[in-house]
Amino acid sequence: MMLVLIKNALILPIDDAMSVIDNGYVHIDGDTIVAAGAGAAPEIPNAEIIDADGDLVMPGMVNPHCHMAMTLFRGLGEDVDDRLYRYVLPMERKFVTPEMVRVGTELAALELIEAGVTTVADMYYFETEVGRVVDRAGFRGVVGQTIADFNPPDHKTIDEGFALAEQLVAEFAGHDRVIPSIAPHAPYSTDIAVMNRVARWAEDHPDVPVQIHLAEMDSEMEWCAKNHGMRPVEVVDKAGLLRKGLICAHCLHVNESDIAKMAHAQVCVAHNARSNAKAGRGIAPVEAMRKAGIPVGIATDGPMSGNTLDLFSQFAPVTMFQKLLGHSRKPMPAVDVIRMATIEGARVLGLDRKLGSLEPGKKADLIRIDLSAPRMQPVYDIYASLMFSAMPVDVRDVMVAGKWLMRGREVLSLERRKVMRDALQIAGQFKAEMARIDAAG
Amino acid sequence: MMLVLIKNALILPIDDAMSVIDNGYVHIDGDTIVAAGAGAAPEIPNAEIIDADGDLVMPGMVNPHCHMAMTLFRGLGEDVDDRLYRYVLPMERKFVTPEMVRVGTELAALELIEAGVTTVADMYYFETEVGRVVDRAGFRGVVGQTIADFNPPDHKTIDEGFALAEQLVAEFAGHDRVIPSIAPHAPYSTDIAVMNRVARWAEDHPDVPVQIHLAEMDSEMEWCAKNHGMRPVEVVDKAGLLRKGLICAHCLHVNESDIAKMAHAQVCVAHNARSNAKAGRGIAPVEAMRKAGIPVGIATDGPMSGNTLDLFSQFAPVTMFQKLLGHSRKPMPAVDVIRMATIEGARVLGLDRKLGSLEPGKKADLIRIDLSAPRMQPVYDIYASLMFSAMPVDVRDVMVAGKWLMRGREVLSLERRKVMRDALQIAGQFKAEMARIDAAG
Repeated sequence: MMLVLIKNALILPIDDAMSVIDNGYVHIDGDTIVAAGAGAAPEIPNAEIIDADGDLVMPGMVNPHCHMAMTLFRGLGEDVDDRLYRYVLPMERKFVTPEMVRVGTELAALELIEAGVTTVADMYYFETEVGRVVDRAGFRGVVGQTIADFNPPDHKTIDEGFALAEQLVAEFAGHDRVIPSIAPHAPYSTDIAVMNRVARWAEDHPDVPVQIHLAEMDSEMEWCAKNHGMRPVEVVDKAGLLRKGLICAHCLHVNESDIAKMAHAQVCVAHNARSNAKAGRGIAPVEAMRKAGIPVGIATDGPMSGNTLDLFSQFAPVTMFQKLLGHSRKPMPAVDVIRMATIEGARVLGLDRKLGSLEPGKKADLIRIDLSAPRMQPVYDIYASLMFSAMPVDVRDVMVAGKWLMRGREVLSLERRKVMRDALQIAGQFKAEMARIDAAG
Repeated sequence: MMLVLIKNALILPIDDAMSVIDNGYVHIDGDTIVAAGAGAAPEIPNAEIIDADGDLVMPGMVNPHCHMAMTLFRGLGEDVDDRLYRYVLPMERKFVTPEMVRVGTELAALELIEAGVTTVADMYYFETEVGRVVDRAGFRGVVGQTIADFNPPDHKTIDEGFALAEQLVAEFAGHDRVIPSIAPHAPYSTDIAVMNRVARWAEDHPDVPVQIHLAEMDSEMEWCAKNHGMRPVEVVDKAGLLRKGLICAHCLHVNESDIAKMAHAQVCVAHNARSNAKAGRGIAPVEAMRKAGIPVGIATDGPMSGNTLDLFSQFAPVTMFQKLLGHSRKPMPAVDVIRMATIEGARVLGLDRKLGSLEPGKKADLIRIDLSAPRMQPVYDIYASLMFSAMPVDVRDVMVAGKWLMRGREVLSLERRKVMRDALQIAGQFKAEMARIDAAG
């Protein structure tokens, strides 16, 4: 078993008190944290000793909603209003293969590890391929096989969709880091009977988290009103899917009654601040949901919608939007934002007993952050510095389950040059296809 | 005279067409751009040849509103609601000296150069000291001596304030990069007679830009209504200060009539998206002001209000806020944002004939940006990539007036270690004073 002792670190354990430990240590045995504390580090024979030289050590971050493989679509048609129907859907139908999913997910993995994100919830197609990349790259993933009615690239029928979910479960059952998940796409794109089938399937698979897009768009509100005379949260409830642990992405359009239903059902929310705002869709009532007891994590959405996959870029928008809604400096203080990025994000994924803090018995998922950039100094309040000044490049080292995935900003678990080369090769095909579409008018 | 030829670059000249030049070159003679274009680079004997290896080259960015020395207050009392009266004002009165201004401005200079900002408009105290730092650090500054009624740290009387402005003008008259400026603080903090005196003084100093905080806060609206029965823009107009070239920071609370007055008077606006949102104050109507013909630049505000001084961190908020206001993806597209950060920012400062684009005859202020980070790839639309994915760390080299201020991320014009040491020494005094204030209750 590998023993590691990190000492001389500024430690944020993300315990209930949100302690800040100057000159602390973390003791790791195999994939587990034995102790994290202040004062003189214990003597641990045969341990690898890391002198953090005053750098910050905190839990790895949790990104609870992503479509990793869509890195390959990042920035495509950014200012084109009908980009979804003009480019994305036709191109997904043409290009989404297990190989494309592998390449896009590897590019995402590189970015995520470099940014100190150690756990991601993903929803896409050929999700078994996503699980394989997460496995090889060494981080954690809740990998969700999409189920949808719109003839998605990997299943022509709902039966085929469930078969893919079964295959995913079979391949990763019992895996410590890759957690199979099922993802009915959204109330407007997955029939109520299909959502109900997912709910029943999930009863038979109690360890498989369910993810869904929910209450994201005006058009979704209109569709649900027209087709069901209901709000999206009510449609999902009617389908029997508003159940404990459901990971709901977005939740912009939720009123008091929806929030009460969601809290009662013990669902969780993945908040996608930048993605929602970029589309002009609005601001999710995060403070209201959290006050109702709903755990809310900070997510990036897919890179086509949110561009980057790091949480640092989300922190300022997350707090600014709630401050704008509250017309005050007070809402969503820095400690709340950093909790959402770590332990609360873990709770959203049902993993808070296993990760999200540096406490004895937790998995050794941690990151080391360099505070020396001029923009980071001085530090009066380390949480404020993380929220408003830190950037992905400040992450120096990343450990997941006791293994180093990055040291001194070099990702150890992926071949960077090959990942980039493969991604650019596929991007070249996408560019050619865009030109073809544009030429066709 | 130094000759430089940068070749094999992806060039964004920021011309009217917003051209994108693949494999282009920039030819620099002394402090001036001779040519920037596509195709084979010309043969220039004795030129320093830089092979940009496909990196992006664009104009240095313009930050039209800052209080640079306040880096030393960055993050201080972030979540404390009365931090202004509890900490900042008493501490400014106690600690603001020419030495503190020098140290804080040097820390800002380091961050700005590392982030590719080559021109800054500043408003603070002992502004001659700010001008000296800008001079030594090699970038450009419009350095504004504050004039205010509230007994600020560097002048007990308005006469003393004007004397500081005269001294600033005397020291930097004719300086190519340091432009003296005068900065009546705001309509609520600078008496109408004083603002009028500034307006008359400015008539006698036609090359000295005037800066002011305007229409920023609810309390300012109330104060102006109560004391003058007017809106802030009307108060400044009544003082005779709403004049061509006035650099107005913030302008959140401007209605149609205000905007028409501002456009008619040919004033300019520095938009501080993050700072305004962080304080819960609201969103400035940037699209409406720009449609009225008012140039709007992207600013950071001081680091106590906005934390970081780079423009990359502002890009997503700037566009997201207008998209939220417009409830659509369309407002404020990437090309507009990058124009605001360069040529339009230069216009806000009255410097657009001199800088803000890479065109023959312009000053050689340019930055080289590395596009190789995983989060930057693929690139389908370079402006979108800059707006949503680029970060300060991607800036590799910075040139101002034909001189390299940074090469390979090493700032050449400042002693980094000494700057950081001096800053942390003063931050230590600030921490002790905060502890003293907190102990006093």
